[in-house]
Amino acid sequence: MADEHSARLADHDTAISEVEQEFAAMYTQVRHVLTRRAAAVHPELTVFGYKLLRELSADEDQQQGVLADRLFADKGAISRIVRQLEGLGLVTRVPDPSDRRAQLVRLTDTARESLDSVLADNRSVLRSRLSLWEIDDIHRLRDLLSKVNETVTEREQVHRDER
Amino acid sequence: MADEHSARLADHDTAISEVEQEFAAMYTQVRHVLTRRAAAVHPELTVFGYKLLRELSADEDQQQGVLADRLFADKGAISRIVRQLEGLGLVTRVPDPSDRRAQLVRLTDTARESLDSVLADNRSVLRSRLSLWEIDDIHRLRDLLSKVNETVTEREQVHRDER
Repeated sequence: MADEHSARLADHDTAISEVEQEFAAMYTQVRHVLTRRAAAVHPELTVFGYKLLRELSADEDQQQGVLADRLFADKGAISRIVRQLEGLGLVTRVPDPSDRRAQLVRLTDTARESLDSVLADNRSVLRSRLSLWEIDDIHRLRDLLSKVNETVTEREQVHRDER
Repeated sequence: MADEHSARLADHDTAISEVEQEFAAMYTQVRHVLTRRAAAVHPELTVFGYKLLRELSADEDQQQGVLADRLFADKGAISRIVRQLEGLGLVTRVPDPSDRRAQLVRLTDTARESLDSVLADNRSVLRSRLSLWEIDDIHRLRDLLSKVNETVTEREQVHRDER
């Protein structure tokens, strides 16, 4: 009985490790695509810089604080990358019309042009791939991912309650 | 007929958007957990710094170039974060025994202690959650993720061949 129970636990553990490996492989593939897209916009652009430009392209001029929230970064990291992007001629800083003491980060025309051509050529990797799938499989994937997102462990619940 | 076709395409599109939203929600949840763990190690530690410490904890002293590859970052970003971690007393640099001109990054004892206690308390979020699932659902998720990873679009194939 005890052996059967531990064999079952081991199978469970292996299955979970396999899911972790698939997520890791997915992360690596996405990083490779983003690295290639960043290089297509500018040879010295990092993936983080590319993500910042993409935010500006979707939603126009932004305060650095907003960019920090959107990119889950601290303000120091944002201010360093903005300086670097300025150096590459990809962004400029303009006065914020709604707050005299603040500045907004804005895409340059050069950045907008390169970004538009890269984005037009490259839909989300996920979207391109799933467009080849049967809809039933897409629904199955959605339901399982939603279940991962909703399964909150007891320990996490404690952390949430502490907030 | 044409209407039926476009209705089917629209359903497909909606289903794909739902999968994208689930992945985005997952990303946000993981970032929140990592932000909390980083802060538990040191109040000024960023998520990127936390990931670097985790690499060192799994695999001992490392050259900055190896850390750059593992974290998909450029060397400039690694050298800045290593300086910052040195300032926080979380890493030191030691001579590389296999290459006199090189240095290795090493966890300090303080960093190792805080990291061990954070890691002991917090298994991978995914692992904790999936441990509550039936094994069949875990296998289904694994198979669908593996299918996402293996579905390579024609356009991506062209890019691969160009390498």
